[in-house]
Amino acid sequence: MDKLFIIKIGGNVIDTADELQSFLQQFAVVPEKKILVHGGGKIATTIGKKIGIEPNYINGRRITDEATIDLVTMVYGGLINKKLVASLQSLYCNAIGLTGADANVIPSVKRPVKEIDYGFVGDIDSSKLGVDNWQLLLNNNLVPVIAPLTHDGKGQMLNTNADTIASALAVALSKKYEVRLIYCFEKKGVLENVEDENSVINLINKEKYRQLLADNKLADGILPKIDNAFDAIDNGVKEVLIGDADDLLLNCTESVKGTLFK
Amino acid sequence: MDKLFIIKIGGNVIDTADELQSFLQQFAVVPEKKILVHGGGKIATTIGKKIGIEPNYINGRRITDEATIDLVTMVYGGLINKKLVASLQSLYCNAIGLTGADANVIPSVKRPVKEIDYGFVGDIDSSKLGVDNWQLLLNNNLVPVIAPLTHDGKGQMLNTNADTIASALAVALSKKYEVRLIYCFEKKGVLENVEDENSVINLINKEKYRQLLADNKLADGILPKIDNAFDAIDNGVKEVLIGDADDLLLNCTESVKGTLFK
Repeated sequence: MDKLFIIKIGGNVIDTADELQSFLQQFAVVPEKKILVHGGGKIATTIGKKIGIEPNYINGRRITDEATIDLVTMVYGGLINKKLVASLQSLYCNAIGLTGADANVIPSVKRPVKEIDYGFVGDIDSSKLGVDNWQLLLNNNLVPVIAPLTHDGKGQMLNTNADTIASALAVALSKKYEVRLIYCFEKKGVLENVEDENSVINLINKEKYRQLLADNKLADGILPKIDNAFDAIDNGVKEVLIGDADDLLLNCTESVKGTLFK
Repeated sequence: MDKLFIIKIGGNVIDTADELQSFLQQFAVVPEKKILVHGGGKIATTIGKKIGIEPNYINGRRITDEATIDLVTMVYGGLINKKLVASLQSLYCNAIGLTGADANVIPSVKRPVKEIDYGFVGDIDSSKLGVDNWQLLLNNNLVPVIAPLTHDGKGQMLNTNADTIASALAVALSKKYEVRLIYCFEKKGVLENVEDENSVINLINKEKYRQLLADNKLADGILPKIDNAFDAIDNGVKEVLIGDADDLLLNCTESVKGTLFK
């Protein structure tokens, strides 16, 4: 099977011009098949305020009302996505920007209303993700750049977390590719000592994880990320990596600077 | 060669919910290969005003400044494009929304500054349009939905007239397909008698055109459209049609209700 890197960046990378440029330069030259999944950024909030859309929270949870889904469709699907695509094209990377509606690459269902009505938010069932159109693009040297948007198949765009999209894609495409799912975040990786940025643990397998938990070495904030990583691996993803956007090229090799889960 | 319909709609269709829905229902069931090229709509001006972007004119010509290219990238490339795609997907039409930057499908050059600096506006050279990625999409039953945006290959999105995109695409793809280029506009077609909506001339070839000109039968407003149509035909496009969005299905057959140029 061919290798495939599915790489997720969030607002922390998108909002910092220097960091974004350095990331894109590295991403453009990764020689293997690759997909970029991006989140939002401060620009959505800035533009939302100008248009008069205030973030709407119920019980501390952000709600995607009708005005907000239009806002994120514009900003994530238009402004951010096309700027990333145009930048990658200038770096000779044949990027193609997509939402989940395009070519129906990520169908979802509107999240059912239980205690909270989250509004226009889409939940993905990775078993429903067709792989044909992904293979068509990837096997023809196109590089998909995915905005955090899906659709319900009934004409409605839906807001979907970029981490969730990256993970669902990784699971679905593991049937056809040897996938390394890379989450870029604000630290170099999982730290053995939270006070020491250089104490990155480069490899965590399940045994190592149990040992780290037993030794009480892990900060609480990192635990859900690690659980998600092993979840993906349990569902067929070969490897998951958490690392700094600026270390991308090395993190796409065996000499990782971040933390590789396998 | 396979038939290919390249169909352009403008703000007059996009801004009228009923008319748009009727058009999309017809577009979805056109059985041949097809591309939809869309223009903008009033929503760009509405959102621009809210954000504080006033249309900027020099000598009566609209200028695309930096704020405006961001605005149209959001609204045309994001909001309008994705709403069209999601609607078509709900009609079982496997639409894929693209700008010219995506997969580099429409490279352009920033319009050179002569008397006027139009700003971030892209001019297309149809001989520079690669056909490989278009064939990849069309021959795999995907239906491209194109926003009126191109890119300069150096990282900059550019604003480009939707009529121009449709025409350049038609010329480039005529090497591989038997193209009918369809412009949806506010009348049923070219009228023999401007007072009578039912006096559509269904076929205009060059001989008929000379005769209509000699008889002084054509309204001034229609002449540039007819010249553009014959320009496309002189450059290899098989047929050009001008008609009402609501007559799309018949206008994709030989029993046209609009005006066919050939």
